[in-house]
This record gives sequence, C-alpha cells and structure tokens, in this order.
Amino acid sequence: PDIASRRWLAEKFEACGLIPRWDPAANLFGLPPQSGQPVLIGSHSDTQPEGGWLDGAYGVILALEVARTSQESGGPPVAVVSFQDEESAFMPLSGSRYFSRYLDLDTLYDLTNAAGQRYGDEATALPEVQGAEPLETNHFSHFLEAHIEQGPVLDLANETIGVVETIVGSRQFEVVIEGQQNHAGTTPMSLRRDAVTGFSAFVSALEQRYTAAATPRSVWTIGRVQVHPNAPSIVPGSVSCSVQMRDGALNQLDLMCDITRDTAQEIAEARNLKISSIQNKSVEPVDMDERVINAFCEAANLNAPGRWRRMPSG
Amino acid sequence: PDIASRRWLAEKFEACGLIPRWDPAANLFGLPPQSGQPVLIGSHSDTQPEGGWLDGAYGVILALEVARTSQESGGPPVAVVSFQDEESAFMPLSGSRYFSRYLDLDTLYDLTNAAGQRYGDEATALPEVQGAEPLETNHFSHFLEAHIEQGPVLDLANETIGVVETIVGSRQFEVVIEGQQNHAGTTPMSLRRDAVTGFSAFVSALEQRYTAAATPRSVWTIGRVQVHPNAPSIVPGSVSCSVQMRDGALNQLDLMCDITRDTAQEIAEARNLKISSIQNKSVEPVDMDERVINAFCEAANLNAPGRWRRMPSG
Repeated sequence: PDIASRRWLAEKFEACGLIPRWDPAANLFGLPPQSGQPVLIGSHSDTQPEGGWLDGAYGVILALEVARTSQESGGPPVAVVSFQDEESAFMPLSGSRYFSRYLDLDTLYDLTNAAGQRYGDEATALPEVQGAEPLETNHFSHFLEAHIEQGPVLDLANETIGVVETIVGSRQFEVVIEGQQNHAGTTPMSLRRDAVTGFSAFVSALEQRYTAAATPRSVWTIGRVQVHPNAPSIVPGSVSCSVQMRDGALNQLDLMCDITRDTAQEIAEARNLKISSIQNKSVEPVDMDERVINAFCEAANLNAPGRWRRMPSG
Repeated sequence: PDIASRRWLAEKFEACGLIPRWDPAANLFGLPPQSGQPVLIGSHSDTQPEGGWLDGAYGVILALEVARTSQESGGPPVAVVSFQDEESAFMPLSGSRYFSRYLDLDTLYDLTNAAGQRYGDEATALPEVQGAEPLETNHFSHFLEAHIEQGPVLDLANETIGVVETIVGSRQFEVVIEGQQNHAGTTPMSLRRDAVTGFSAFVSALEQRYTAAATPRSVWTIGRVQVHPNAPSIVPGSVSCSVQMRDGALNQLDLMCDITRDTAQEIAEARNLKISSIQNKSVEPVDMDERVINAFCEAANLNAPGRWRRMPSG
C-alpha cells in the first residue's frame, strides 16, 4: 500500500505539471519544471498501525495543493516531497536522514525491518528507484512541513495554527539510587538507607527546582522507575529511573542538567545514599529560519487572527 | 537430616530424664517426668537454605540445657519443644500453628511442599508419629522462646539481651495512583497529571507525617512500586505500590492507617489524581505476659547490667 500510494502521488504530480523524481531511498519528489531554486514542502505518507489519518499524509497533500496552485497561478517554483519511512519501520526518519546526509546509502540499505526485509532490497526492487540519482539539499531553498499537532496545546486553546520556531532538544539521565536492602520488620527507621524514600525526595526536589527554573515550554519526565528487590516486606535497596527534559533553548537544557546533578548529590549526602546520574541521551535543539517564522506569523495573523501562536515542536 | 536431628534430640531428652513425645504434626516435645504444669521452652530445628546456624537451633539447645539443669538441681518442671516446619517448607509456622490450634490436622496434612510431598504422608511415615496423640496448650503454663536477633539493634548498641514485650502487628495497603498517560514531548507541564510525581509527593508527605507520629519502634516501608507504562518518553499514567507499617501498639497502627488514607486523599485532590488505598493485610500485635517480661528483665539486669533492653519482635 505504501508503494501504491506513492505511485498515486506521482500521478498527481504529473497531473499538475510537476516532474516525479524518486531518489535511491525511495523518497518521492515532485519537481517544478521551471528553473530557479524551488522551496521544498512535504511530509511523509507512511503511518503507524492505527495512527491518525492526518499524521503525515496531511502535510503531503497540503504541499501538493500549494505546488499545484503555484503552477496554475504562475507563482514561485514549489517542489513536493513524501519522505520514506518516517515512522520507523526501519529506523526513525530513515528516508529524510538519507536525504539530509545524516545517513549514507550503504547504512540505509542494510537496515532491516521487523519482517526481516532489507531496505535496499525493497527499494531497488522498484523500477522507479533502479538507477535513481540522489537529490542534494541545496537543490532547494527551504524545507517547510505542515503537520497536525500531536499535543493538546492548540486544541485546548481553540487555536488553529502553531508556527514552529524551534525543534526542541532533549537530555536524558539514567539515575541510580543505592541504599541498603534490609528486612522491613526488624530494621528501625533510624538505621535505614531506603532507596524509595530517597527517590521520592529526589523527585519532589526536582519538581520544585525545575518548576522554579523552567519556562512555560520546558518539559521534564520521570517515566521509567525500577525498584529492587521490589517486595512489600523488604526495605528497597536500589531504584533506577530515567530523567528526561526537553526545551528549545540550549541554556535552559544546561540549567536543568545542572539541577539534576546537584539535586542528586544533595539527596545522596542528606540521606547517606549513593546516587549516580549519567547522561545517556542528548538531542540538540534546532531553531527554524527567522524569515520563514515571520512569514508564517504574518500569514497566520491575516487568516486566523488571535487563534495562532509561536510554539516549539516536541 | 531433619528427622535425624529430631531423633538425636529425642536421645538427648532421654539422657537428661525428659520423656520424648511426638505429636501428629511431628513436633517433638521433651516432657518432664514429675507432676505439675511445666513451662514449655523451645524453638525450631529446621533452617533456611544457607540460614544462620543459630536461627532456631539455638533456642532448642538452650531449652534442653535449661530443662537438664532443672532436672539435675530439682528445679521446677521444664518441657522442651522443637516445632516442625517453622521455616515454611509447607507453610510458615505450620508445626506451631497446629499445636496452638490455628490449623487443624486435616488442613495441615494436606499441605504440600515444593517437591510435591504431602505433610501428612511424610509425618505418618515416621514410626514415632504413627498413633501419636496431640498435646493441648494448657498442658503447659507458659511458652518461652530464645532466638537470635534478626535485626541490627542489639548488635549496633553492643547489647546482649533483648526482652521481647510485644510481637508487633502490621497493616498493609495497596495504593494505586492514577493520572493520565501522555506523550512526554508534547504535553506541557501545566496539563499533566503525572502519577510518578504524585507518588513521590505522597511518599514524601507520608515520610514527614509518619515520622512526626511514630514512636522509635514504629516502622513503615514502601517496598514494591510498579509504574505504568514505565517508559522514559511517556508521562506515567499510573503507579501502584505497597505501604506496610508495623508497630506493637494497636492505636499506633490505627493512627498510621489514618495518616495513609488522609494523605492519599490530600495528594489526589491537590494534583487532580485518583488514588485508592485498600488495606489488604492485617496482623494484630500480641503483648507478652507482663510477669514473664519482668522476670526476664530482672535476670537481664543481674547478668548483663546496662547491656539489655525491652524491645518488640518484628
């Protein structure tokens, strides 16, 4: 069905005067015939099992409509793209990673999906991809993507447009709190080094300090917690947990990392625990082009006055 | 080896003038020959895999020595017992449960161990148990048990004797905290109902309030914690945990139960969570006979002045 939908899209490209162009990753572009550096608009047409029908496909169809309108009305050159495998059958964003050269073709082709299929075998089995040439990112002036909101912010505020100014960055820590495992009946409170009460004090302190330091756009989550030995009659010996924070601003992420490490150390000292906090994931925030943001804001102001906002993308 | 050790014990009984007496549970008693209601002293001679060598056996051998001395010196009648299956090959305390009639013989005999052996088959295979008559608890005036300390209190204080005044009671709650599961990237903090931060606030509040209300002998433990869905990038939707408290005093247990319920309700209201706390275990505290406590205290004062204390048994 993915290939069928791409071939359908290629027909639509031709119908409105765009030239279908597959690249070696089976990303499908629709290129305008006129000269000049086009803006590239698009998203992905693959979906999650039971994913929402607008997640991805909306951005592709919108791009098609913009390009068609521009062709018809003699506007500027607009190219369209449906990237391959955004939803991670092989790897998250594998098609656009290849296009933007964060992934080379050999690595891409060696990826396998859950069914054991190899990306390269599947892609090169398509006549359209055989002998396809890559497209360089500098073939285009900008890349724009329209996507439905996956959080609740706009929906709850009854707003219709969010202009993304930043793709948020993230930091993640694996925190391990070690106390002393003991019998819950015979160990007096004064002699305990309880990892669960230590964990709770750590999280409560983080909550207070993050909240004081955060902007309205900072988010942080302690989503995974593992207690050992995890039995009602045993004073817990250790707790491990994930601490994840996201923000569009690098200095805000740094601040929250400092808070995490400092709080871990304070709680460890106050409670005679051993706490290690190891940063194990890091994605840098990326700012969008200010000219593009401003153009979208002006358009939003005209078409949805009072019902739009600038916001980060999660 | 258990039966061999009991037969060895029966020989020792005879050697010091006691009459070996097996009951239908294969509990082994050594009864004094003289008339009068004897005091019963003993413990258990079974052990845990890799259990300490003093856990149980110490109390049996001590009782044997006390009875032997009393026989030799013309003291009061002292009976000895080694209860069967204290360590729960079939059920915790199954031998002494039967003796004290908390378990009837049919139920006892139908218990099976991990190897699939039936208690009744094993017991009645012993010639000593075939046709054995039960012993009534009122055959004896008191039951005394010597046991090594399984907690750290005496050891840390460099004391040698703990006089047990109470077998502590316990209460246990299963607490379920329900919030709302959400994506950790796109859900702003202000819209979250996070079960893990709620859990941490609950435990931190309990810690403060229990500590304020507790005696030095109250203990409480949150030993089991389960987070759902337990993934770093998902705002936790629910947490379930055990909350267990032990104390020798009934009113103290009641107070801690009230604190648990009240705190759960407060946290639920403050954080827009749903918290249920269901009491699922309850063991009543049992006070020891004050005359026996006092006799032990006097003896401890004579023989280990300044190096003993009254204390609860966990």
